[in-house]
Amino acid sequence: MSARAGIVVTGTEVLSGRVRDANGPWLAERLLDLGVELAHIVIVGDRPEDMAAQLRVMRDQGLDLVITSGGLGPTADDLTMEVVARFNGHEMRFDAELDATIAAIVAPMARRWRQADPEAVAAGTRKQATVPDGGAVLQPVGTAPGAVVPPAAGAGPTVVVLPGPPRELQAMWADAVATAEFHAATGGHTTYRQHTLRLFGIPESEIAATLRVAEREVDGFDRLEITTCLRRAEVEVVTRYEPDAEQSWDALLDVIRGRHRDTLFSTDGTTIDDQVAKLLTGRRIALAESCTGGLLAARLTERPGSSDYVLGGVVSYSNHAKESLLGVDPELIERLGAVSPEVAEAMADGALSRFDADVGVGITGVAGPGGGTEEKPVGYVCICVKTGDGQVLAADPRLPGDRAEIRDRSTTVAMHMLRWLLQGSS
Amino acid sequence: MSARAGIVVTGTEVLSGRVRDANGPWLAERLLDLGVELAHIVIVGDRPEDMAAQLRVMRDQGLDLVITSGGLGPTADDLTMEVVARFNGHEMRFDAELDATIAAIVAPMARRWRQADPEAVAAGTRKQATVPDGGAVLQPVGTAPGAVVPPAAGAGPTVVVLPGPPRELQAMWADAVATAEFHAATGGHTTYRQHTLRLFGIPESEIAATLRVAEREVDGFDRLEITTCLRRAEVEVVTRYEPDAEQSWDALLDVIRGRHRDTLFSTDGTTIDDQVAKLLTGRRIALAESCTGGLLAARLTERPGSSDYVLGGVVSYSNHAKESLLGVDPELIERLGAVSPEVAEAMADGALSRFDADVGVGITGVAGPGGGTEEKPVGYVCICVKTGDGQVLAADPRLPGDRAEIRDRSTTVAMHMLRWLLQGSS
Repeated sequence: MSARAGIVVTGTEVLSGRVRDANGPWLAERLLDLGVELAHIVIVGDRPEDMAAQLRVMRDQGLDLVITSGGLGPTADDLTMEVVARFNGHEMRFDAELDATIAAIVAPMARRWRQADPEAVAAGTRKQATVPDGGAVLQPVGTAPGAVVPPAAGAGPTVVVLPGPPRELQAMWADAVATAEFHAATGGHTTYRQHTLRLFGIPESEIAATLRVAEREVDGFDRLEITTCLRRAEVEVVTRYEPDAEQSWDALLDVIRGRHRDTLFSTDGTTIDDQVAKLLTGRRIALAESCTGGLLAARLTERPGSSDYVLGGVVSYSNHAKESLLGVDPELIERLGAVSPEVAEAMADGALSRFDADVGVGITGVAGPGGGTEEKPVGYVCICVKTGDGQVLAADPRLPGDRAEIRDRSTTVAMHMLRWLLQGSS
Repeated sequence: MSARAGIVVTGTEVLSGRVRDANGPWLAERLLDLGVELAHIVIVGDRPEDMAAQLRVMRDQGLDLVITSGGLGPTADDLTMEVVARFNGHEMRFDAELDATIAAIVAPMARRWRQADPEAVAAGTRKQATVPDGGAVLQPVGTAPGAVVPPAAGAGPTVVVLPGPPRELQAMWADAVATAEFHAATGGHTTYRQHTLRLFGIPESEIAATLRVAEREVDGFDRLEITTCLRRAEVEVVTRYEPDAEQSWDALLDVIRGRHRDTLFSTDGTTIDDQVAKLLTGRRIALAESCTGGLLAARLTERPGSSDYVLGGVVSYSNHAKESLLGVDPELIERLGAVSPEVAEAMADGALSRFDADVGVGITGVAGPGGGTEEKPVGYVCICVKTGDGQVLAADPRLPGDRAEIRDRSTTVAMHMLRWLLQGSS
């Protein structure tokens, strides 16, 4: 059995829906990497009794590890350290060395505040330097130290106390994992293997059907823990298993390969973005976007070093821009409409020639909510991918979703068309 | 006192960190709109005992309302309805009418599945048509019905059971709110007023200092519930209060206005995107982007109807593209570097002339992680906003954060520069 963990995130602004919690998902991925099973993520407000109640629930459920984020600030209402100390049976102690460390960090910040009251600042520092008398202290990344706090006596989860700002939490994580207390709480458990498969161009229900087949055909199927999910128009299948179930995994992979050879594009964990970036090595791409409004260019340039292969793009939202910046024939737009396979190809041609590129992409579509017609409804998108030596791939799918989803899915379809064309021609 | 609620999200793929939960934040905003205080968001796996434990915790804490998402599928391991029925003391009943409704929805889907087994499909439909014998049933949006389930006897939260897919959950929400059961659980409580202030160009610590001043100066300050947070390089201040604390809110607003007149840009809930869209009415904008790679164009075209004022843009990632598509003088790039205020202005000029626009924006910078120098470090971004009649606003800030943050913040700075320039010139 693997170790089991829970996460407690504090933050009123997360509860109000104005801020998305980034720490829960980030920690979830780290725990997965370590082979620790995550039982809960809980988001609570700033009330100490709510956090205490959640810690008790997690103890009742026999969890080995609890990770908290937030509530470590200098003000009196940031009470995570005290709640955790009490929960695991420790007194609080003032740590003079830590106090000096924090004071040195805070001093230059305090000087910048207009209304900073030196006494209040010192009180805040003292408060942050007061930590549970037991377990390990984690040195501050911002101003707040963290801690790894095992139960003083008896059973119960070891609590890893981390700050709320994602940058600080992430920087402190390695220190937490390196402590003897962390190891004691999670060690001695089986490690799991994990593989991610990615498919494009089939509904999730097809994978569900395949898994029903695999359930009958694969020996030891029940030893595989499989989750599937739809993400950015792709289906992701994640399988986790103990090392001695490797043969069952191999058999499952054979079943999926056999039934979905045409849509299974990644078995080694790479994303479509990884694959397209690799395929573009040594080539130069240019984009011509209408309905996606620059999203494909933004997606390709997310990656550091993308300037090696992205020359640029034109966002031709107006017909005039399609004509003057991409050289699309006005007569073509007039005759077939700005959203048509022909105009998408003319845009790709324009991108190729204007940027002197090796690969060009043209995208034009109806992102909605307005502008749809019976013939060209909202979600109808024309995409053309073309190389300088004349190879072409074109598609005009009708994509589901709202305006944001249609725009995002259009970029995913274009990425897969790039993969098909570049793989074929390399 | 306002009604208090909790949210229980089920989903193994959320716990694994591969999918971000969208339902918690969405429901949080809806509850805020209704004046319901949100005490917890909990994300649990598929084990029924974990959900039952969380429901008990929420009852122990005296919550009035619990909203669940997920676990309503046709398979036997989707147990939310049963767990909720048992929790609130109801038997399960088979609803023949609901069964017919679901069967009609499922039939065309089942025909598309390759391996669909009619018996399995019928069993799944029967399972989904079996609901708690008490409370209200919510008609399916996908295939799964929802429910609003009050306690059969005694005290305890009313549970709103919603499906996991965000589209279904969101479409079902209005039906849930309209039920007598929902009203009974949340009614009879005070409604709150809420205002959002937005500031740009100051650190969050400045607002903290202002709130310390307000604490001394504003009568009834403790009746205002104030949260501040940093979002996309802006500071958001949300204040909630009971209607009879209106005067304290007015006094707080005066204090913030007095100290931050130059950076407070929104007191009516509008975002910078709303304001820029409004200011662009009757004008036409074109963009020239380098480090942001199309993100500003994508941001401006997120909005339906943006084709009225967005002509388009050029993503000029390569120097050649800056020269050939925007007419930037190669000598300028050679002499001052591609990342320089002069090149940003030449790019804005190019956008203006090539698109025949009224407003042009040029952005060039070092997004990192590589490419920084001592003189032009990672985060150094040059932005120029210019109108066709020669008004100019330029800035070259050094922005904090990683590649993605620098790119996103650059678009926010550009949006605020657009606001300044267009407000001044209108």
